[in-house]
Amino acid sequence: MSDTRAATVPLVDEATAIGKVAEIFADIKQTKNIDFVPHFWRVIATNPTQLEVVWTSLKRLMHPEATKTESLLDPRTREIIAIAVSATNGCNYCINSHTTAAMKLGLSREALGEVLAIAGLFNMTNSLADGYQIEPDVRPPLE
Amino acid sequence: MSDTRAATVPLVDEATAIGKVAEIFADIKQTKNIDFVPHFWRVIATNPTQLEVVWTSLKRLMHPEATKTESLLDPRTREIIAIAVSATNGCNYCINSHTTAAMKLGLSREALGEVLAIAGLFNMTNSLADGYQIEPDVRPPLE
Amino acid sequence: MSDTRAATVPLVDEATAIGKVAEIFADIKQTKNIDFVPHFWRVIATNPTQLEVVWTSLKRLMHPEATKTESLLDPRTREIIAIAVSATNGCNYCINSHTTAAMKLGLSREALGEVLAIAGLFNMTNSLADGYQIEPDVRPPLE
Amino acid sequence: MSDTRAATVPLVDEATAIGKVAEIFADIKQTKNIDFVPHFWRVIATNPTQLEVVWTSLKRLMHPEATKTESLLDPRTREIIAIAVSATNGCNYCINSHTTAAMKLGLSREALGEVLAIAGLFNMTNSLADGYQIEPDVRPPLE
Amino acid sequence: MSDTRAATVPLVDEATAIGKVAEIFADIKQTKNIDFVPHFWRVIATNPTQLEVVWTSLKRLMHPEATKTESLLDPRTREIIAIAVSATNGCNYCINSHTTAAMKLGLSREALGEVLAIAGLFNMTNSLADGYQIEPDVRPPLE
Amino acid sequence: MSDTRAATVPLVDEATAIGKVAEIFADIKQTKNIDFVPHFWRVIATNPTQLEVVWTSLKRLMHPEATKTESLLDPRTREIIAIAVSATNGCNYCINSHTTAAMKLGLSREALGEVLAIAGLFNMTNSLADGYQIEPDVRPPLE
Repeated sequence: MSDTRAATVPLVDEATAIGKVAEIFADIKQTKNIDFVPHFWRVIATNPTQLEVVWTSLKRLMHPEATKTESLLDPRTREIIAIAVSATNGCNYCINSHTTAAMKLGLSREALGEVLAIAGLFNMTNSLADGYQIEPDVRPPLE
Repeated sequence: MSDTRAATVPLVDEATAIGKVAEIFADIKQTKNIDFVPHFWRVIATNPTQLEVVWTSLKRLMHPEATKTESLLDPRTREIIAIAVSATNGCNYCINSHTTAAMKLGLSREALGEVLAIAGLFNMTNSLADGYQIEPDVRPPLE
Repeated sequence: MSDTRAATVPLVDEATAIGKVAEIFADIKQTKNIDFVPHFWRVIATNPTQLEVVWTSLKRLMHPEATKTESLLDPRTREIIAIAVSATNGCNYCINSHTTAAMKLGLSREALGEVLAIAGLFNMTNSLADGYQIEPDVRPPLE
Repeated sequence: MSDTRAATVPLVDEATAIGKVAEIFADIKQTKNIDFVPHFWRVIATNPTQLEVVWTSLKRLMHPEATKTESLLDPRTREIIAIAVSATNGCNYCINSHTTAAMKLGLSREALGEVLAIAGLFNMTNSLADGYQIEPDVRPPLE
Repeated sequence: MSDTRAATVPLVDEATAIGKVAEIFADIKQTKNIDFVPHFWRVIATNPTQLEVVWTSLKRLMHPEATKTESLLDPRTREIIAIAVSATNGCNYCINSHTTAAMKLGLSREALGEVLAIAGLFNMTNSLADGYQIEPDVRPPLE
Repeated sequence: MSDTRAATVPLVDEATAIGKVAEIFADIKQTKNIDFVPHFWRVIATNPTQLEVVWTSLKRLMHPEATKTESLLDPRTREIIAIAVSATNGCNYCINSHTTAAMKLGLSREALGEVLAIAGLFNMTNSLADGYQIEPDVRPPLE
């Protein structure tokens, strides 16, 4: 299958990247403290504007300390959100990548199981609430 | 909200429809044995080709008796599939429409609850299987 | 619209519920420390088995303290997962319900904004990773 | 790819499972009348509470005869719902598993084709109804 | 993995197809100007009615010139819609197939990157708008 | 329903916005050439960082002429992608907003119908390809 995939959009090679792409590749490795550029960034580098837009957004939201952005969530919770969304969408690459990242931040296998169980539970209740066309409960407003 | 919606795509009026659209409107009422044209068909009639493509497909698959098509499922099971898909996608109009249709075919409220519970269950297990990136089981082939 | 919806599946009335349904309704109010039974539970009570299955699962996973279940996540993180999944699926009722619950647990409006921004970010990257058919990075296994 | 996956969450080995996990593994094999524990259950067994919650729900809803639960649907229809949901979500493992299960219950290849065609049809009409923001039809209530 | 998959639904062999299936296979090759029948059509040919329904719809909408259907979009835009939908749903086969088709129609790798970036952007804003339960803006109707 | 919604996250009032939020509100009106700030931006302004991240991304990708970004797609095609994604996700607010925007750019009602029909078609074929677990076709690589 890899031949077919490679045929449509090849990875940008880190060694030969130049200009803005090379700068962002270096920033990704430094910000994430890793020694390689993940496939995701090497593929979207096909369109340098896209690489810049996505990296700028992700850096602000997932690496606030590197962008002097105030964050009200801790790094592990941010990765938990990534896992919950990726499991819901069934995105293989993203689940693989964020599961690994969350475990590096100390999420145990048992805790990962709890995250996925809760994400699964709400995928169930979401389809029930939609399937029954349930109207929101009327509640006093939060002040 | 209805004003805003009506602004983008108005319903085609049954009384003034002509040509192919009028013919399909009549066929919908006769095939489904109802005395009005549901909103769905009146909206997609904005583009007559689209109306024809969608109606032709739906008539073949959901009303096989009217198109001399062989079907291996009974009408209630076909509506159950419609409900399961629509609950999974959270499509309000479709849930409303197919819940009504299934109940007309004798699906009780309790049985509808069972359909939605099972659909909910698999929305849960789907996100679990995806979230854990589980490889299919190796099994002997069915003959 | 509410008339049409009410036509398909009416809410089970708390005042007249009996047997297992009445017991679960009481348990919901006590476990969640609220003085009404939310629409969600009143609708799925149409099928008492379904009510029991869903409530048992949700009680175990979202109210572990009430079921002597060990949990490795705090209550706010559990609600954050619920919000991330519900925003991804676009489930109106669930977003409304879990946003309210998370705010009761101290999630500020700004922090809710961060949760939704991060959930949005990964809905973007999920579709990019899928759209480019990116293969997972090869990495040394976590021990 | 399997190395990378195995790195994040390894399968629980049936031979060495103990306690509650071993009991549930045995129950799965007996209830489903199979001689191995499918990958799905071996992975979620990483978190024994999760295993118990998911198995309890699935056993009630999909194997009512084993839990003295009343069911209003036949086993084949239940598997058809599983297939329709899994095809809509694009869950590879689940499609593989439930297609196999439905075929064991006598669903022919042709009938599977009809199930998937109808599921596909409603994935089309769902996006049309949502894309046009169609309001539900006003109808007289079902008694 | 291919053995397991092949076990559930085998491809219909082009060389041995007869009757309506053989006619449609020939029409697919001619209409699409390719010298093989893609896997998609060979699988759904398991149920000839399904093959006919899906091919008839796709031919009308994606090959209007071959069906004397008026189209208001150009072929490249039609493939761009296919890519945007397939990336959103994470359908591997479809992304592969439509990316290839769009590139044959002259979509460059950079432009494909822009399509996927914009599709990703709206997957982000969709979950934000749903997550915040935002009401549509009230606007003067378009005439 | 609006009371309940308003209770969770109120809109930021354009008249009283200050600092970065006021600047972005002004930029939105100027870039989009509209005389009001749409609900979407007023809600996500609850978290100013989020507002900035999302607006910066959307401005680059959807208003390249205002950011000296090279674009390989025309404005109408960009809105068509937005509609296709939003219809697939069933996002009400986004469909409403982008349908209006596309019509302002000259997309006729009939052409909108064609966009939605094609998006619907691929939601159907996506679920079929996933439902049958179809392997990508092996093809010679594009040079």
